[in-house]
Amino acid sequence: MSGTGPPDEPLPNDDPVAIGPWRRRTRRIAYENPWLRVYHDEVDRPDGSPGIYGVVHFRNTAVVVVAIDGQDRVALVAQHRYTLDERSWELPAGGVPRDEDPLAGAQRELREEAGVEATTWQALGRMHLSNSVTDEVAMLYLATDLRHGEAELEASEADLSLEWIPFDEVIERVMDGRISDALSVIALQRVALSRLTAGSATR
Amino acid sequence: MSGTGPPDEPLPNDDPVAIGPWRRRTRRIAYENPWLRVYHDEVDRPDGSPGIYGVVHFRNTAVVVVAIDGQDRVALVAQHRYTLDERSWELPAGGVPRDEDPLAGAQRELREEAGVEATTWQALGRMHLSNSVTDEVAMLYLATDLRHGEAELEASEADLSLEWIPFDEVIERVMDGRISDALSVIALQRVALSRLTAGSATR
Repeated sequence: MSGTGPPDEPLPNDDPVAIGPWRRRTRRIAYENPWLRVYHDEVDRPDGSPGIYGVVHFRNTAVVVVAIDGQDRVALVAQHRYTLDERSWELPAGGVPRDEDPLAGAQRELREEAGVEATTWQALGRMHLSNSVTDEVAMLYLATDLRHGEAELEASEADLSLEWIPFDEVIERVMDGRISDALSVIALQRVALSRLTAGSATR
Repeated sequence: MSGTGPPDEPLPNDDPVAIGPWRRRTRRIAYENPWLRVYHDEVDRPDGSPGIYGVVHFRNTAVVVVAIDGQDRVALVAQHRYTLDERSWELPAGGVPRDEDPLAGAQRELREEAGVEATTWQALGRMHLSNSVTDEVAMLYLATDLRHGEAELEASEADLSLEWIPFDEVIERVMDGRISDALSVIALQRVALSRLTAGSATR
Protein backbone atom coordinates (compact mmCIF):
# COMPACT_ATOMS: atom_id res chain seq x y z
CA MET A 1 0.00 0.00 0.00
CA SER A 2 1.53 3.25 -1.09
CA GLY A 3 1.51 6.33 1.10
CA THR A 4 1.22 8.61 -1.91
CA GLY A 5 -1.93 8.89 -3.96
CA PRO A 6 -2.52 9.90 -7.55
CA PRO A 7 -1.88 13.59 -8.34
CA ASP A 8 -5.55 14.44 -7.87
CA GLU A 9 -5.47 13.15 -4.31
CA PRO A 10 -3.03 15.27 -2.33
CA LEU A 11 -1.87 13.87 0.97
CA PRO A 12 -3.72 15.35 3.92
CA ASN A 13 -2.07 17.82 6.21
CA ASP A 14 -3.13 19.17 9.57
CA ASP A 15 -4.23 22.65 8.54
CA PRO A 16 -7.80 23.10 9.81
CA VAL A 17 -10.34 23.22 7.00
CA ALA A 18 -13.86 24.65 7.04
CA ILE A 19 -16.36 22.27 5.42
CA GLY A 20 -19.60 24.19 5.57
CA PRO A 21 -20.60 24.31 9.26
CA TRP A 22 -18.05 21.57 10.04
CA ARG A 23 -14.38 22.13 10.82
CA ARG A 24 -11.77 19.48 10.04
CA ARG A 25 -8.97 19.73 12.58
CA THR A 26 -6.83 16.76 11.50
CA ARG A 27 -6.90 14.13 8.75
CA ARG A 28 -4.99 10.88 8.38
CA ILE A 29 -5.18 8.07 5.85
CA ALA A 30 -6.52 5.06 7.75
CA TYR A 31 -6.57 2.61 4.81
CA GLU A 32 -6.18 2.58 1.07
CA ASN A 33 -6.26 0.18 -1.84
CA PRO A 34 -6.56 0.72 -5.60
CA TRP A 35 -10.31 1.50 -5.31
CA LEU A 36 -10.67 3.27 -1.95
CA ARG A 37 -9.04 5.58 0.47
CA VAL A 38 -10.41 5.81 4.03
CA TYR A 39 -9.73 9.02 5.94
CA HIS A 40 -10.01 9.34 9.71
CA ASP A 41 -10.71 12.98 10.58
CA GLU A 42 -10.95 14.83 13.86
CA VAL A 43 -13.69 17.43 13.50
CA ASP A 44 -15.78 20.08 15.16
CA ARG A 45 -19.40 19.29 14.40
CA PRO A 46 -21.99 21.85 13.26
CA ASP A 47 -22.96 22.60 16.88
CA GLY A 48 -19.25 23.17 17.75
CA SER A 49 -18.77 19.95 19.72
CA PRO A 50 -15.71 17.77 18.98
CA GLY A 51 -16.08 14.50 17.10
CA ILE A 52 -14.57 12.16 14.54
CA TYR A 53 -15.52 11.41 10.93
CA GLY A 54 -14.50 8.43 8.82
CA VAL A 55 -14.75 9.28 5.11
CA VAL A 56 -14.63 6.54 2.47
CA HIS A 57 -13.23 8.16 -0.67
CA PHE A 58 -13.97 6.30 -3.90
CA ARG A 59 -11.19 6.62 -6.48
CA ASN A 60 -13.62 5.76 -9.28
CA THR A 61 -16.89 7.16 -10.53
CA ALA A 62 -19.59 4.48 -10.77
CA VAL A 63 -21.29 4.10 -14.14
CA VAL A 64 -24.45 2.08 -14.83
CA VAL A 65 -26.21 1.43 -18.12
CA VAL A 66 -29.81 0.60 -19.05
CA ALA A 67 -29.21 -1.07 -22.44
CA ILE A 68 -32.44 -1.79 -24.34
CA ASP A 69 -32.51 -3.79 -27.56
CA GLY A 70 -34.91 -3.63 -30.51
CA GLN A 71 -37.27 -6.11 -28.81
CA ASP A 72 -37.52 -3.91 -25.68
CA ARG A 73 -35.33 -6.26 -23.69
CA VAL A 74 -32.89 -5.01 -21.03
CA ALA A 75 -29.38 -6.41 -20.47
CA LEU A 76 -29.12 -7.77 -16.92
CA VAL A 77 -26.03 -9.37 -15.44
CA ALA A 78 -25.81 -11.57 -12.36
CA GLN A 79 -22.72 -12.02 -10.27
CA HIS A 80 -21.92 -13.15 -6.76
CA ARG A 81 -21.33 -10.02 -4.67
CA TYR A 82 -18.41 -10.67 -2.34
CA THR A 83 -19.49 -7.97 0.14
CA LEU A 84 -22.96 -9.52 0.65
CA ASP A 85 -22.23 -13.19 -0.13
CA GLU A 86 -25.28 -13.08 -2.42
CA ARG A 87 -25.85 -13.47 -6.13
CA SER A 88 -27.26 -10.20 -7.46
CA TRP A 89 -29.03 -9.30 -10.73
CA GLU A 90 -28.02 -5.81 -11.84
CA LEU A 91 -27.51 -3.55 -14.80
CA PRO A 92 -24.06 -3.58 -16.43
CA ALA A 93 -21.93 -1.28 -14.32
CA GLY A 94 -18.40 -0.54 -13.28
CA GLY A 95 -15.91 1.97 -11.96
CA VAL A 96 -14.26 4.65 -14.10
CA PRO A 97 -11.17 6.57 -12.94
CA ARG A 98 -12.17 10.10 -11.94
CA ASP A 99 -10.02 11.61 -14.70
CA GLU A 100 -11.65 9.51 -17.44
CA ASP A 101 -14.83 10.48 -19.32
CA PRO A 102 -17.63 8.56 -17.55
CA LEU A 103 -19.53 8.02 -20.81
CA ALA A 104 -16.47 6.35 -22.37
CA GLY A 105 -16.24 4.19 -19.26
CA ALA A 106 -19.92 3.27 -19.48
CA GLN A 107 -19.45 2.29 -23.13
CA ARG A 108 -16.50 0.08 -22.15
CA GLU A 109 -18.41 -1.60 -19.30
CA LEU A 110 -21.38 -2.32 -21.57
CA ARG A 111 -19.08 -3.85 -24.17
CA GLU A 112 -17.17 -5.93 -21.59
CA GLU A 113 -20.14 -7.21 -19.57
CA ALA A 114 -22.92 -7.43 -22.15
CA GLY A 115 -20.95 -7.69 -25.39
CA VAL A 116 -22.85 -4.84 -27.05
CA GLU A 117 -22.14 -1.42 -28.46
CA ALA A 118 -24.80 1.29 -28.69
CA THR A 119 -25.26 4.11 -31.18
CA THR A 120 -27.53 6.22 -28.97
CA TRP A 121 -26.58 7.28 -25.44
CA GLN A 122 -28.69 9.41 -23.12
CA ALA A 123 -27.60 10.63 -19.68
CA LEU A 124 -30.07 9.64 -16.94
CA GLY A 125 -28.52 11.64 -14.13
CA ARG A 126 -25.81 11.92 -11.52
CA MET A 127 -26.25 10.43 -8.06
CA HIS A 128 -24.51 10.40 -4.71
CA LEU A 129 -24.44 7.08 -2.90
CA SER A 130 -24.34 6.89 0.91
CA ASN A 131 -23.24 10.51 1.31
CA SER A 132 -23.08 10.33 5.09
CA VAL A 133 -20.04 8.05 4.75
CA THR A 134 -18.75 8.05 1.16
CA ASP A 135 -18.07 10.59 -1.58
CA GLU A 136 -19.10 8.12 -4.27
CA VAL A 137 -20.60 9.64 -7.42
CA ALA A 138 -22.48 7.66 -10.07
CA MET A 139 -23.44 8.52 -13.65
CA LEU A 140 -26.46 6.75 -15.18
CA TYR A 141 -27.04 6.14 -18.88
CA LEU A 142 -29.65 4.79 -21.29
CA ALA A 143 -28.14 3.00 -24.31
CA THR A 144 -30.19 2.09 -27.38
CA ASP A 145 -29.60 1.14 -31.04
CA LEU A 146 -27.42 -1.82 -30.08
CA ARG A 147 -24.97 -3.93 -32.06
CA HIS A 148 -24.16 -7.30 -30.53
CA GLY A 149 -20.60 -8.61 -30.11
CA GLU A 150 -18.68 -10.70 -27.55
CA ALA A 151 -18.43 -10.04 -23.78
CA GLU A 152 -14.92 -9.80 -22.27
CA LEU A 153 -14.97 -10.32 -18.51
CA GLU A 154 -12.47 -9.29 -15.84
CA ALA A 155 -10.95 -11.73 -13.33
CA SER A 156 -13.45 -10.67 -10.67
CA GLU A 157 -16.33 -11.26 -13.10
CA ALA A 158 -15.61 -14.82 -14.24
CA ASP A 159 -18.94 -15.95 -12.73
CA LEU A 160 -20.97 -13.22 -14.44
CA SER A 161 -24.00 -14.31 -16.45
CA LEU A 162 -25.97 -12.19 -18.88
CA GLU A 163 -29.68 -12.26 -19.74
CA TRP A 164 -31.87 -10.08 -21.93
CA ILE A 165 -35.19 -9.65 -20.10
CA PRO A 166 -38.33 -7.82 -21.33
CA PHE A 167 -38.49 -4.30 -19.88
CA ASP A 168 -41.84 -4.81 -18.12
CA GLU A 169 -40.54 -7.94 -16.40
CA VAL A 170 -37.41 -6.09 -15.30
CA ILE A 171 -39.59 -3.39 -13.72
CA GLU A 172 -41.57 -6.11 -11.93
CA ARG A 173 -38.28 -7.41 -10.51
CA VAL A 174 -37.39 -3.89 -9.37
CA MET A 175 -40.72 -3.33 -7.64
CA ASP A 176 -40.88 -6.73 -5.91
CA GLY A 177 -37.28 -6.51 -4.64
CA ARG A 178 -35.59 -9.16 -6.80
CA ILE A 179 -33.41 -6.33 -8.13
CA SER A 180 -32.10 -4.46 -5.07
CA ASP A 181 -28.91 -2.79 -6.30
CA ALA A 182 -29.54 0.91 -5.71
CA LEU A 183 -28.07 2.24 -8.95
CA SER A 184 -29.85 -0.34 -11.07
CA VAL A 185 -33.13 0.52 -9.34
CA ILE A 186 -32.71 4.27 -9.85
CA ALA A 187 -31.86 3.95 -13.54
CA LEU A 188 -34.67 1.48 -14.29
CA GLN A 189 -37.29 3.42 -12.32
CA ARG A 190 -36.20 6.56 -14.17
CA VAL A 191 -36.77 4.97 -17.57
CA ALA A 192 -40.14 3.61 -16.38
CA LEU A 193 -41.19 7.07 -15.16
CA SER A 194 -40.05 8.55 -18.43
CA ARG A 195 -42.26 6.17 -20.40
CA LEU A 196 -45.28 6.81 -18.17
CA THR A 197 -44.93 10.59 -18.47
CA ALA A 198 -44.20 10.59 -22.23
CA GLY A 199 -40.53 11.48 -22.16
CA SER A 200 -40.54 14.42 -19.75
CA ALA A 201 -38.97 12.36 -16.97
CA THR A 202 -35.55 11.83 -18.53
CA ARG A 203 -34.94 15.37 -19.70
CA MET B 1 -10.23 2.14 18.36
CA SER B 2 -11.27 -1.11 19.98
CA GLY B 3 -10.07 -4.50 18.75
CA THR B 4 -13.31 -6.16 19.72
CA GLY B 5 -16.59 -5.61 17.93
CA PRO B 6 -20.19 -6.04 19.06
CA PRO B 7 -21.33 -9.66 19.57
CA ASP B 8 -22.81 -9.77 16.05
CA GLU B 9 -19.45 -8.93 14.51
CA PRO B 10 -17.04 -11.74 15.40
CA LEU B 11 -13.37 -10.99 14.96
CA PRO B 12 -11.97 -12.36 11.72
CA ASN B 13 -9.67 -15.35 11.74
CA ASP B 14 -7.55 -16.82 9.02
CA ASP B 15 -9.61 -19.88 8.16
CA PRO B 16 -10.28 -19.76 4.43
CA VAL B 17 -13.94 -19.07 3.64
CA ALA B 18 -15.82 -19.77 0.40
CA ILE B 19 -17.93 -16.78 -0.68
CA GLY B 20 -19.69 -18.04 -3.77
CA PRO B 21 -17.00 -18.38 -6.47
CA TRP B 22 -14.59 -16.29 -4.34
CA ARG B 23 -12.32 -17.66 -1.64
CA ARG B 24 -11.25 -15.49 1.31
CA ARG B 25 -7.80 -16.55 2.43
CA THR B 26 -7.15 -13.95 5.17
CA ARG B 27 -9.07 -11.08 6.77
CA ARG B 28 -7.85 -8.24 8.98
CA ILE B 29 -9.58 -5.16 10.37
CA ALA B 30 -7.99 -2.16 8.62
CA TYR B 31 -10.08 0.54 10.32
CA GLU B 32 -13.11 0.93 12.51
CA ASN B 33 -15.19 3.62 14.16
CA PRO B 34 -18.69 3.58 15.68
CA TRP B 35 -20.33 3.51 12.24
CA LEU B 36 -17.95 1.47 10.06
CA ARG B 37 -15.53 -1.39 10.00
CA VAL B 38 -13.16 -1.75 7.03
CA TYR B 39 -11.81 -5.22 6.30
CA HIS B 40 -8.77 -5.92 4.15
CA ASP B 41 -9.04 -9.41 2.71
CA GLU B 42 -6.68 -11.54 0.66
CA VAL B 43 -8.78 -13.50 -1.81
CA ASP B 44 -8.83 -15.87 -4.73
CA ARG B 45 -11.03 -14.31 -7.39
CA PRO B 46 -13.74 -16.17 -9.35
CA ASP B 47 -11.21 -17.13 -12.05
CA GLY B 48 -8.84 -18.50 -9.36
CA SER B 49 -6.29 -15.68 -9.55
CA PRO B 50 -5.05 -14.05 -6.30
CA GLY B 51 -6.23 -10.59 -5.32
CA ILE B 52 -7.28 -8.32 -2.48
CA TYR B 53 -10.69 -7.01 -1.43
CA GLY B 54 -11.48 -4.04 0.82
CA VAL B 55 -14.94 -4.40 2.35
CA VAL B 56 -16.62 -1.46 4.07
CA HIS B 57 -18.98 -2.95 6.65
CA PHE B 58 -21.76 -0.62 7.83
CA ARG B 59 -22.73 -1.19 11.46
CA ASN B 60 -26.13 0.46 10.83
CA THR B 61 -29.01 -0.14 8.47
CA ALA B 62 -29.95 3.02 6.58
CA VAL B 63 -33.59 4.09 6.81
CA VAL B 64 -35.26 6.75 4.67
CA VAL B 65 -38.82 8.12 4.86
CA VAL B 66 -41.14 9.73 2.32
CA ALA B 67 -43.46 11.64 4.69
CA ILE B 68 -46.48 13.18 2.93
CA ASP B 69 -48.89 15.51 4.70
CA GLY B 70 -52.57 16.17 4.07
CA GLN B 71 -51.74 18.85 1.48
CA ASP B 72 -49.60 16.39 -0.53
CA ARG B 73 -46.38 18.02 0.62
CA VAL B 74 -43.20 16.03 1.28
CA ALA B 75 -40.81 16.64 4.18
CA LEU B 76 -37.35 17.51 2.80
CA VAL B 77 -34.31 18.29 4.91
CA ALA B 78 -31.13 20.04 3.82
CA GLN B 79 -27.79 19.64 5.50
CA HIS B 80 -24.19 20.19 4.56
CA ARG B 81 -22.72 16.79 3.71
CA TYR B 82 -19.21 16.60 5.14
CA THR B 83 -18.12 13.89 2.68
CA LEU B 84 -19.00 16.01 -0.37
CA ASP B 85 -18.61 19.53 1.04
CA GLU B 86 -22.03 20.28 -0.46
CA ARG B 87 -25.43 21.19 0.92
CA SER B 88 -27.87 18.43 -0.01
CA TRP B 89 -31.68 18.28 0.01
CA GLU B 90 -32.84 14.82 1.02
CA LEU B 91 -35.60 12.86 2.66
CA PRO B 92 -35.37 12.40 6.43
CA ALA B 93 -33.00 9.49 6.96
CA GLY B 94 -30.60 7.96 9.40
CA GLY B 95 -28.78 4.89 10.60
CA VAL B 96 -30.35 2.21 12.78
CA PRO B 97 -28.31 -0.40 14.66
CA ARG B 98 -28.60 -3.76 12.90
CA ASP B 99 -30.25 -5.34 15.95
CA GLU B 100 -32.97 -2.66 16.13
CA ASP B 101 -36.27 -2.78 14.21
CA PRO B 102 -35.67 -0.55 11.14
CA LEU B 103 -39.27 0.69 11.18
CA ALA B 104 -38.87 1.91 14.77
CA GLY B 105 -35.64 3.63 13.67
CA ALA B 106 -37.39 5.27 10.73
CA GLN B 107 -40.12 6.53 13.06
CA ARG B 108 -37.47 8.01 15.38
CA GLU B 109 -35.59 9.68 12.51
CA LEU B 110 -38.78 11.22 11.15
CA ARG B 111 -39.65 12.56 14.60
CA GLU B 112 -36.14 13.94 15.19
CA GLU B 113 -35.53 15.51 11.79
CA ALA B 114 -39.02 16.57 10.70
CA GLY B 115 -40.84 16.80 14.03
CA VAL B 116 -43.70 14.58 12.88
CA GLU B 117 -45.26 11.27 13.81
CA ALA B 118 -47.22 9.19 11.32
CA THR B 119 -50.13 6.82 11.84
CA THR B 120 -49.71 4.95 8.55
CA TRP B 121 -46.43 3.34 7.48
CA GLN B 122 -45.83 1.41 4.28
CA ALA B 123 -42.60 -0.39 3.38
CA LEU B 124 -41.19 0.74 0.01
CA GLY B 125 -38.43 -1.83 -0.29
CA ARG B 126 -34.99 -2.96 0.74
CA MET B 127 -31.90 -1.81 -1.17
CA HIS B 128 -28.19 -2.49 -1.34
CA LEU B 129 -25.94 0.53 -1.79
CA SER B 130 -22.58 0.25 -3.54
CA ASN B 131 -22.44 -3.52 -3.20
CA SER B 132 -19.06 -3.81 -4.93
CA VAL B 133 -17.49 -2.14 -1.87
CA THR B 134 -19.98 -1.99 1.02
CA ASP B 135 -22.52 -4.28 2.67
CA GLU B 136 -24.84 -1.36 3.39
CA VAL B 137 -28.55 -2.19 3.47
CA ALA B 138 -31.33 0.40 3.37
CA MET B 139 -35.03 0.17 4.22
CA LEU B 140 -37.43 2.64 2.59
CA TYR B 141 -40.78 3.77 3.98
CA LEU B 142 -43.81 5.88 3.08
CA ALA B 143 -45.35 7.68 6.08
CA THR B 144 -48.79 9.31 5.94
CA ASP B 145 -51.50 10.54 8.36
CA LEU B 146 -49.05 12.87 10.10
CA ARG B 147 -49.21 14.68 13.43
CA HIS B 148 -46.83 17.62 13.75
CA GLY B 149 -44.55 18.17 16.77
CA GLU B 150 -41.05 19.53 17.38
CA ALA B 151 -37.82 18.42 15.65
CA GLU B 152 -34.91 17.30 17.90
CA LEU B 153 -31.59 17.40 16.04
CA GLU B 154 -28.33 15.59 16.74
CA ALA B 155 -24.97 17.39 17.13
CA SER B 156 -24.06 16.56 13.52
CA GLU B 157 -27.38 17.97 12.30
CA ALA B 158 -27.35 21.44 13.90
CA ASP B 159 -27.40 23.01 10.43
CA LEU B 160 -30.34 20.95 9.21
CA SER B 161 -33.27 22.82 7.72
CA LEU B 162 -36.72 21.42 6.99
CA GLU B 163 -39.18 22.30 4.24
CA TRP B 164 -42.52 20.87 3.19
CA ILE B 165 -42.58 20.87 -0.62
CA PRO B 166 -45.46 19.85 -2.94
CA PHE B 167 -44.98 16.29 -4.19
CA ASP B 168 -44.95 17.24 -7.88
CA GLU B 169 -42.22 19.83 -7.27
CA VAL B 170 -40.18 17.29 -5.33
CA ILE B 171 -40.37 14.90 -8.29
CA GLU B 172 -39.22 17.73 -10.58
CA ARG B 173 -36.20 18.20 -8.30
CA VAL B 174 -35.49 14.47 -8.51
CA MET B 175 -35.68 14.39 -12.30
CA ASP B 176 -33.59 17.53 -12.89
CA GLY B 177 -30.87 16.47 -10.45
CA ARG B 178 -31.41 18.95 -7.62
CA ILE B 179 -32.08 15.94 -5.41
CA SER B 180 -29.21 13.50 -6.00
CA ASP B 181 -29.08 11.40 -2.83
CA ALA B 182 -29.60 7.86 -4.09
CA LEU B 183 -31.96 6.63 -1.36
CA SER B 184 -34.11 9.75 -1.57
CA VAL B 185 -34.32 9.34 -5.33
CA ILE B 186 -35.29 5.67 -5.16
CA ALA B 187 -38.01 6.25 -2.57
CA LEU B 188 -39.51 9.28 -4.32
CA GLN B 189 -39.42 7.67 -7.78
CA ARG B 190 -41.13 4.64 -6.30
CA VAL B 191 -44.00 6.68 -4.89
CA ALA B 192 -44.31 8.53 -8.23
CA LEU B 193 -44.42 5.22 -10.13
CA SER B 194 -46.98 3.90 -7.69
CA ARG B 195 -49.26 6.88 -8.35
CA LEU B 196 -48.87 6.58 -12.12
CA THR B 197 -49.67 2.87 -12.12
CA ALA B 198 -52.59 3.10 -9.64
CA GLY B 199 -50.95 1.54 -6.64
CA SER B 200 -49.48 -1.61 -8.14
CA ALA B 201 -45.93 -0.29 -7.93
CA THR B 202 -45.56 -0.22 -4.15
CA ARG B 203 -46.98 -3.67 -3.46
